[in-house]
Amino acid sequence: MVSLHGKDLLGIRELTKEEIAGILDHAEEMRKIVVSGDKAQNQTLRGKSVQILFYENSTRTRTSFELAAKYLGASSANIAAAASSVAKGETLIDTGRNIAAMGTDAIVMRHPSSGAPWLLAKNVPCPVLNAGDGLNEHPTQALLDMLTIRRCKGGFEGLKVAIVGDILHSRVARSDLWALQKLGAKVTFCGLRTLLPRDIEQVGNLEVTQDVREALEGADVVIALRIQLERQAAGLFPSFGEYARVSGLNPKNIRLAKKDVIVMHPGPVNRGVELSSALMDSGVSQITGQVTNGASVRMAVLDLLINHREGR
Amino acid sequence: MVSLHGKDLLGIRELTKEEIAGILDHAEEMRKIVVSGDKAQNQTLRGKSVQILFYENSTRTRTSFELAAKYLGASSANIAAAASSVAKGETLIDTGRNIAAMGTDAIVMRHPSSGAPWLLAKNVPCPVLNAGDGLNEHPTQALLDMLTIRRCKGGFEGLKVAIVGDILHSRVARSDLWALQKLGAKVTFCGLRTLLPRDIEQVGNLEVTQDVREALEGADVVIALRIQLERQAAGLFPSFGEYARVSGLNPKNIRLAKKDVIVMHPGPVNRGVELSSALMDSGVSQITGQVTNGASVRMAVLDLLINHREGR
Amino acid sequence: MVSLHGKDLLGIRELTKEEIAGILDHAEEMRKIVVSGDKAQNQTLRGKSVQILFYENSTRTRTSFELAAKYLGASSANIAAAASSVAKGETLIDTGRNIAAMGTDAIVMRHPSSGAPWLLAKNVPCPVLNAGDGLNEHPTQALLDMLTIRRCKGGFEGLKVAIVGDILHSRVARSDLWALQKLGAKVTFCGLRTLLPRDIEQVGNLEVTQDVREALEGADVVIALRIQLERQAAGLFPSFGEYARVSGLNPKNIRLAKKDVIVMHPGPVNRGVELSSALMDSGVSQITGQVTNGASVRMAVLDLLINHREGR
Repeated sequence: MVSLHGKDLLGIRELTKEEIAGILDHAEEMRKIVVSGDKAQNQTLRGKSVQILFYENSTRTRTSFELAAKYLGASSANIAAAASSVAKGETLIDTGRNIAAMGTDAIVMRHPSSGAPWLLAKNVPCPVLNAGDGLNEHPTQALLDMLTIRRCKGGFEGLKVAIVGDILHSRVARSDLWALQKLGAKVTFCGLRTLLPRDIEQVGNLEVTQDVREALEGADVVIALRIQLERQAAGLFPSFGEYARVSGLNPKNIRLAKKDVIVMHPGPVNRGVELSSALMDSGVSQITGQVTNGASVRMAVLDLLINHREGR
Repeated sequence: MVSLHGKDLLGIRELTKEEIAGILDHAEEMRKIVVSGDKAQNQTLRGKSVQILFYENSTRTRTSFELAAKYLGASSANIAAAASSVAKGETLIDTGRNIAAMGTDAIVMRHPSSGAPWLLAKNVPCPVLNAGDGLNEHPTQALLDMLTIRRCKGGFEGLKVAIVGDILHSRVARSDLWALQKLGAKVTFCGLRTLLPRDIEQVGNLEVTQDVREALEGADVVIALRIQLERQAAGLFPSFGEYARVSGLNPKNIRLAKKDVIVMHPGPVNRGVELSSALMDSGVSQITGQVTNGASVRMAVLDLLINHREGR
Repeated sequence: MVSLHGKDLLGIRELTKEEIAGILDHAEEMRKIVVSGDKAQNQTLRGKSVQILFYENSTRTRTSFELAAKYLGASSANIAAAASSVAKGETLIDTGRNIAAMGTDAIVMRHPSSGAPWLLAKNVPCPVLNAGDGLNEHPTQALLDMLTIRRCKGGFEGLKVAIVGDILHSRVARSDLWALQKLGAKVTFCGLRTLLPRDIEQVGNLEVTQDVREALEGADVVIALRIQLERQAAGLFPSFGEYARVSGLNPKNIRLAKKDVIVMHPGPVNRGVELSSALMDSGVSQITGQVTNGASVRMAVLDLLINHREGR
């Protein structure tokens, strides 16, 4: 089994290609548990304690981590920012140290500020897992995306992966990019000019286009990103309808991609906006599979960080 | 042990008399666990995963389901609507499919829209348990009410059961009616004209009256329904005090019922409104027993749907 | 092992010196579990059910109780007041009885009204643990403070303990006072005149001063209390900066205390207000240790009340 070189899982950028592959291998084992009738068959975190500290709302990611911890037998507590001491003026570091002092073996953290999990990780003795920080990284989302791609395509070398939508505000796009580049895939970012980071063309080994048709052309994998209604108020796109017309994926434009293309989305999906309903309910969509892979990947990284760290 | 014919528990209307009796029999076994010092003695849901998805607030029902799942050894996550992806525009079906894809063996769902659990059930592979949908059904409440009646009265045949209060807005009244009719009891609905459904007289095998004295006369069982303050604002009744005077139960008017009458209420009770405090604290009240029976019934249906479905 | 004489843990005032010492002894055993790699090594609450009913927000205390219950193998549900039936007009007693009827072996309760846990305890058959009631008591906080002091100082006899800050609004100050007096320590309360209870001088065996230097002089233990910003609006102190200047602890004024002084705080800390950052991050601070001791003490009292009550 792979041993991770760091105490924490903060970003994909910190991981080597071999570590990513090792996590995916371990996640394959965990996936057998998730889809089985006996989720308690492998209690490798029995007697361990995992706290889930979220400073942003999230159903999917929080529940996925919570169930991952429980399936492996860990004790787990949910700590929501709204109810937490943050509101009472305590610093992030003090909150983290106090949570760590309750016998905690790992802290899973989501935070609206980029970099917050790094700050926490430096100040607590236990592993910190980044469950999304600002516009920066969302490493377990990238890992579940990689597991989904590897399960469908067998590998990454030479694949064309198009990532379509609000690149500017997407930590998923960033984490996916770092992972795909390490694994040898070719990435195309596609979005309206207002939804692309400035100077994006200067990132090496990356295609950038504003034309969805160009992005889809010959793609093996298409990852649609979520567009948030509040970006419309900010004038970044005119309307959901207009967005769907220009950037939305549907059974017609997906024909530009390879015949065995797969379509992914980090969720929650605005049906009829990023993806047409017809496309979403067709065989090309891997969205439900991504969720299963998400629980699997989270079980894998919790187990690796708590039980199989290098030098422990 | 009874095998339920459907994948889900959606409404009492879908159940046969034999299925209801079988659930109550199994709940009796589960009840021994609830009142024992060892709630972990029967881990039939160990390795199973039960998600509780509530689109309406509820302490009692949510906690009851959560503890039922935990007593049998299941992993369980609470998903509250306010914090959930619903707020982000995801459809109910997509939310449900994603929850199901996390290794979930059953989804317990409460929703303000009548019929929502049926929609979910058609779209996920795992059992769905309706924990209350709009004004339609609340099947586990009816089952716990039936368990309470059967424990006190030994059976249902020929019993007079009066259901008193806000019939119009009560899914409990509906589910209780279907259960009691199947089991052979005679049901009387009693409420102010404004709190009775139109055309209620056309339902077969049902007495309807606006006179509490008539409803109580000779009753074996009286179920008082909760009245919500917001109905007053809507002009459906003049005030809590007035409601208590006309529809409230008390030690005086309960004398019209049989000597061994029992009084029930789905809770939470407005003391002094639906029931006088004196009546509530007297021996005729079975309200605390209903709560114990609620946990028992929920353990029973979770176990039956996950482990003992027909044809599985 | 000590057997507690009461059904409940409501206040320190109800405990004898021997009971407090016995709880601390048991907490020492539990602490070995909290700091170990196997928090599931002692499943003395397996098959038991602990409900956590909080009518006030709290991350630290709620999570500490939740993990304490889980480490010992109990099933546990969180019941937050905002989402609970309280909002629906149910009385505290009825809410408590209903929670008790779900197979519950103990209820942990926080409530803004002084005395509420006593009311609940009289009306439910299971143990009630007070997790803070109004301005009255917070017994597990006092117990964890005593454990922290005993671990650092070896005992209590003749120690000078200064409690500094908003005495008036602090249930921690009250519970600590009762505990320290029973155990033989000498207590000094120190606060601005507006933050001291009237007639405080009439409490026997207690020094009171408004001068921090006098309080710190020769102290073995200093407990700083949290100051809440809303007290400023009420005119009880002019500003955080002013408060820090007059009542705040820092590396300079702490030199008035004994050389081996320890500094404690119930958290969450306003850094730079009650304690300077430099002091907080120095070796004299026992704040992180208090958190570990908190989980330990809560495991101890849950175990003692559920498994080792006198006459059970």
